[in-house]
Amino acid sequence: MTRILIIGGGGMVGQKLAHRLSETGLQGPGERQVTLLDLGFPDAGAPAAERVTGRLSERTDWIARQRFDLIFHLAAIVSGESETNFDLGWDVNMMSNWQLLSALRAEHAASGGTYIPRLIFTSSIAVFGAPYPDRIGDEFLSSPQTSYGAQKACTELMVQDFSRKGFIDGMSLRLPTICVRPGKANLAASSFFSGIIREPLNGKDAILPVPDSVRHWHASPRAAARFLTHAATLDTARLQGRRALNLPGVSCTVADQIEALRRAAGQAAVDRIKPQPDAAIMKIVEGWPRDFDPARAIALGFEAERDFDEIIATYIADDLPSARQ
Amino acid sequence: MTRILIIGGGGMVGQKLAHRLSETGLQGPGERQVTLLDLGFPDAGAPAAERVTGRLSERTDWIARQRFDLIFHLAAIVSGESETNFDLGWDVNMMSNWQLLSALRAEHAASGGTYIPRLIFTSSIAVFGAPYPDRIGDEFLSSPQTSYGAQKACTELMVQDFSRKGFIDGMSLRLPTICVRPGKANLAASSFFSGIIREPLNGKDAILPVPDSVRHWHASPRAAARFLTHAATLDTARLQGRRALNLPGVSCTVADQIEALRRAAGQAAVDRIKPQPDAAIMKIVEGWPRDFDPARAIALGFEAERDFDEIIATYIADDLPSARQ
Repeated sequence: MTRILIIGGGGMVGQKLAHRLSETGLQGPGERQVTLLDLGFPDAGAPAAERVTGRLSERTDWIARQRFDLIFHLAAIVSGESETNFDLGWDVNMMSNWQLLSALRAEHAASGGTYIPRLIFTSSIAVFGAPYPDRIGDEFLSSPQTSYGAQKACTELMVQDFSRKGFIDGMSLRLPTICVRPGKANLAASSFFSGIIREPLNGKDAILPVPDSVRHWHASPRAAARFLTHAATLDTARLQGRRALNLPGVSCTVADQIEALRRAAGQAAVDRIKPQPDAAIMKIVEGWPRDFDPARAIALGFEAERDFDEIIATYIADDLPSARQ
Repeated sequence: MTRILIIGGGGMVGQKLAHRLSETGLQGPGERQVTLLDLGFPDAGAPAAERVTGRLSERTDWIARQRFDLIFHLAAIVSGESETNFDLGWDVNMMSNWQLLSALRAEHAASGGTYIPRLIFTSSIAVFGAPYPDRIGDEFLSSPQTSYGAQKACTELMVQDFSRKGFIDGMSLRLPTICVRPGKANLAASSFFSGIIREPLNGKDAILPVPDSVRHWHASPRAAARFLTHAATLDTARLQGRRALNLPGVSCTVADQIEALRRAAGQAAVDRIKPQPDAAIMKIVEGWPRDFDPARAIALGFEAERDFDEIIATYIADDLPSARQ
């Protein structure tokens, strides 16, 4: 029996992951018990999962005492909000993570050193800061230009050091921008990348706050859930001490996205996109990476989509029917 | 009048810096008042400097209220001790720094945004982790393999983010291993690099815990003080948001060091070096960088020694006479 906790399990990727675990497990069939921790949950949520409502910072000792075999940590204050609320961002995205790691370490000690949970931390490509090479390689420096990126990078360093010491067996996945997100827009500065596809496919208008020449790095929610389960069963010795990983994705411009939308849903859908430049969002987005050469992750078996058409097809297959209900 | 604080001002580099400030100021003459904060001070200390005895974590609010124009932060638990005392290392080398930055930010807010101190944080090449390219460039990733390195890297991220937000005007200097250190051996795993030169020059035996093929990256205490004063008056806009900097140094093997000692002091001095392999020290040291291409720092005007002979000459000129008193 594998006991699994998803911190941030009420969120979009957390729910995708819970569904995936209930359907295919980690590596095929096998007994597992999934617990979700979050501030709230969607009404029609993932099946066969225990739900715990609460704040991570108030639950770290409880989490440690439960001795989960596997912990996915997806909870965070998103990039836009971390930029406007400095205290909240550092408190949740760094200090709470320190507290979680400290609690797991205390439980490791209490167990006589036998309890060493696998921890998969969702980091972000926001750990990088401009200027960039054309493609960011696996040895490129992390010099974030947002608070969110700095907080993610700090947590990566902690996950690596606690793992090196043998208190946990952790790794950090630098997720591409997840696109197309179902549901509503959120406070992430990247929210529009999903909005310009999702809203037109649902017969609604979408705002485009940046020029269509903006290039960025994407993977679908389905790919994100697959990254997470793949990481959960990876032999971490293969990481050779470098426990933060750039993941594969699709590099394309907003214009490429729009052309893929045209192929999938026609000109009427494209006409739903309304350019409305937003300097604050542009300032954040222009500091973001555009393309990667994620050789290590590919060698370790991580897989994303081949192009943005496939990302749109994934949204239509996984999420559009329920959006129309 | 420039009001200057040196946190860790009782330590070796802190004292060198205080001496340099009293002799040459920052950029030539100019009124300045220097305060040193440390747990203790040497008997024959730097002149014309106020001494404050205390722990950083208990003094952060006091520091902020003083509104120093310039703060050098040199205090840390050294690498060897951070590795054996996990709690102490993270507490002092990360949490206290967070507390200092938070206090400075609160004072910035209390001043209506006018108080923006220059903060020069001494980081370390320990932020890097093997495997390395032959020469580490300015865009190489920070993936530390010691707790000390992880703590320094976390603080760098905080210094950069607080600076980006305009709360402070900070930068982090990744000092080479400082060599030849005067005085006694300390708990740093790198202590022997100085010991094998210093002890023979003072007529004492020295232990060499690693093979003489070990290559490493060095600068003298005088160069360290010069790096710090140079950073204090640098136009930080030139850093373009990347506020952690690899500094110049001398790359040489222990065998090169020993040959330089032979040239400076003869075979009798070399005979004082006693090989005594230490697996724990070797394990730490073999994860350290060996050579750099610090193009950015050189372009910004930072200067180190040309070779290890010059480093030994600096020790003899600056520190050997007092050692013989």
